[in-house]
Amino acid sequence: MKIKGLKAVLEEKNLDFAFFYNLDSSRISPNMAYFSGYDGLGALIIPKNNEAFLIAPKMELERAKRGYIKNAYPMDKKKLFESVKIILAKKRIKAKKVAIDGQNFSLNFYRHLKKELKAKAKDISLECLKLREIKTEREIKIIKKGFNYADKILWKAIKSLKDFNSEAEAAAFLEYESKKLGLGTSFEPIVASGKNASMPHHKPENARLNKGFCVIDFGVKYKGYCTDCTRTIYIGKPSNKEKEIYNFLLNVQKNIISSIKINDNCGKIYEKCAKELGGYSKYFIHGLGHGVGVEIHEMPNLSLGSKDKIMENMVFTVEPGIYVSGKFGIRIEDTVLMERKPIVLTKVSKDLLII
Amino acid sequence: MKIKGLKAVLEEKNLDFAFFYNLDSSRISPNMAYFSGYDGLGALIIPKNNEAFLIAPKMELERAKRGYIKNAYPMDKKKLFESVKIILAKKRIKAKKVAIDGQNFSLNFYRHLKKELKAKAKDISLECLKLREIKTEREIKIIKKGFNYADKILWKAIKSLKDFNSEAEAAAFLEYESKKLGLGTSFEPIVASGKNASMPHHKPENARLNKGFCVIDFGVKYKGYCTDCTRTIYIGKPSNKEKEIYNFLLNVQKNIISSIKINDNCGKIYEKCAKELGGYSKYFIHGLGHGVGVEIHEMPNLSLGSKDKIMENMVFTVEPGIYVSGKFGIRIEDTVLMERKPIVLTKVSKDLLII
Repeated sequence: MKIKGLKAVLEEKNLDFAFFYNLDSSRISPNMAYFSGYDGLGALIIPKNNEAFLIAPKMELERAKRGYIKNAYPMDKKKLFESVKIILAKKRIKAKKVAIDGQNFSLNFYRHLKKELKAKAKDISLECLKLREIKTEREIKIIKKGFNYADKILWKAIKSLKDFNSEAEAAAFLEYESKKLGLGTSFEPIVASGKNASMPHHKPENARLNKGFCVIDFGVKYKGYCTDCTRTIYIGKPSNKEKEIYNFLLNVQKNIISSIKINDNCGKIYEKCAKELGGYSKYFIHGLGHGVGVEIHEMPNLSLGSKDKIMENMVFTVEPGIYVSGKFGIRIEDTVLMERKPIVLTKVSKDLLII
Repeated sequence: MKIKGLKAVLEEKNLDFAFFYNLDSSRISPNMAYFSGYDGLGALIIPKNNEAFLIAPKMELERAKRGYIKNAYPMDKKKLFESVKIILAKKRIKAKKVAIDGQNFSLNFYRHLKKELKAKAKDISLECLKLREIKTEREIKIIKKGFNYADKILWKAIKSLKDFNSEAEAAAFLEYESKKLGLGTSFEPIVASGKNASMPHHKPENARLNKGFCVIDFGVKYKGYCTDCTRTIYIGKPSNKEKEIYNFLLNVQKNIISSIKINDNCGKIYEKCAKELGGYSKYFIHGLGHGVGVEIHEMPNLSLGSKDKIMENMVFTVEPGIYVSGKFGIRIEDTVLMERKPIVLTKVSKDLLII
C-alpha cells in the first residue's frame, strides 16, 4: 500500500531506495508486510525512480508474488546482499543513500548493510508510521471484514465462557476459532478473571475462572490487518456497586467516542477521559488507545502528552479501564474508524453480561 | 541460566555490564528470557561485578520476580533509561563499555542507548548463542517435560486428522491443545498436504486436506523452552514406490542420528546425509538440523559448510526431507539430546501411518 507516498518521502529526503527485510519468521517487518502484502522471508526494495521488487528464498517466491509487488527475484542461497547487489546493478539503481526502518532493523543487520552496500542509511521509521496511520479505501474494506470475523468469534467465546475450565482454555478457544478459519490473532488473547483482571496484561492461567469481572481482550489478523476489542463480563452475581462502576465506565467510554472530532489532539482526548473518570482516574493505569493496522499498536497514540491529531480514515482504539490492584479490573475497548464522525467497528454488545 | 558464564565473557572482554531489553511483546529478546526466565517488558542488566537485576513496568514486577532474578525495580513511566541511570548510580556501577545483543537490538534503540548512557557498546550475540548451545541439567529437565507434552499433542492430532476439514483446522487443533494446557507453541504449526507438502514452509490452507503425504511440523513452548518434531503421514492409499521412498528416508534419518558422535563436525554430518540420500539429495533443499532452546533455531547449525561441533548436552534436530516441487514432500524430524550418545527426545512413532 502507499508506495507512492513512500516514494515521495524518498524524493524529499533524497534517498535512493527504501530497504526492508525479514530474515526471521518470528520477527516480521511490519513495513515490509505493509508495502508488499508479503510477510515471508526476504527483502523489499522500493527505489525512488524505479519499480519496487522483492527478493525471497526460492521456496517462497510463489507466495511473495501473491502480494502487491509482482516483481520478485530468488535469493541466492541465503546470501541476501549478493542477490541485492546483482539486481541493483542490473537495474542501474544507485545505492548511495538508503532509507531503512531503524525500529525494525537489528544493529547487526545494519552493520552488515553498511559493509555490503557501502551506503549511508537514514531512518524513516516515523515516516512509515505516518503513512500507515491514514488507511486507504482498500485497507478499510479489509479491516471491516476482519472485525466481522473477530466479533463473531469473541461473542461465541463469551457465550461459551461457562464451559471453560480455565482462563487458558478460554484464550485457547479464541485462538482456535480464529486459526480454524485460517485467520491469525493480532496478539495472545487476554482472559483475566477475578483479581487477575486488575493486571491489564495478565497472562491467562491454567486454574479455574475466578468469580467477579472477567476481562477478555482479543483480535484477529485478517489479510495482514489487526483487529482489537475488549469486553468485560461478570461471572457470578455482581453487587449493585459493581454494576454501577461498570455502567459508569461504559458511559465514559461511549461519551469519549462520540465526542471525538477530526483535528482533535490525542493527548487532550486522554485528558478529557481522565477528567470524566473523576476519582477513578487514579485506577486508569494505561493509555486511552492506539492506532490499529498491520501492527496492533500504531499511530495515533491516545496517551497523556501525545501531540498526534485525529484525521479522517484513522483506525484506533478507545479503551478506558479501572483497575484496583489485587481486587478487580474492568476495561471496555472499541476500535473506531474516523470518518467525518467516529464509526465504531466493534459491534459486540457492551451491556454488562452476567453469567 | 548461566549468569556465571556471561560474567566470564564480560570479564574477558572488559565490559561493565550486559544490557538486554524487551519493549515490544511481539519481539521478545531470547537472551533476556534465557538469563532471567522473564519474557515480559523491561530490561535486564547483568553487571560484571554486581548482582543482576531487572527493570519492569510496575504492573509486571510480580511476574518478573517469578524468574531467576529476584532483584526487580519498577520502570518509571516508560522512561527506561532514566530508571536505568538512577539504579546504576545507586549501585555505583560503571557504564563505560556495555555488552549488547546486536541481533536483537534495534538500530534506533542502540542509538538511544549511546545517547543516554554515553557508553561504548559491544555485540556479544555470538557469545550468548555459544553459552546457550550447551544445556544445563535444569534446562534438560524442562526440555524433556516439554517433549512429553508435545508428543501427546502431536499424536492426538495425527489420530484425529481424518476429522479435520482443512490443513488450517488441523494446525489450529495443535495450537488449541497446547494453549489449553497453558503451553505456548514454538512456531506456527505446519500442516502441508498433497503437493503443498513439497514446500517446507507451507502455511496451512483453509481447503480440504489433500490426498498423499501430509507433513506435520509442530512444537510447544514449555517454561520458555521450545520443542520441535515433524511427522509425515499418508492420506489415502500409498503406492509401493511411495512407501519405498518414505522408508528410504526414514532409514537415512535413523542412520544419521545413530552415527552422531561427540566432536563430530556439523557440516560433515550434513554431507554424510546428502551422500546417503544419493539421487534424492537434489530434492533435499534445506539444512539438516538446528539447535533448539529458548529459540526454535539456535546453535549448532547442521548445514553444509557449518563448522559447529557436536558437544555433550547439546539439543538439536535431525530432519532430512525429500521435496519434489509441485508433487509431494516428506520430512522426518526428531530432536536429539547429545549425551555420550544421541538420545532421541521425540517418541512419536515414525512408521508410515496411513489414514
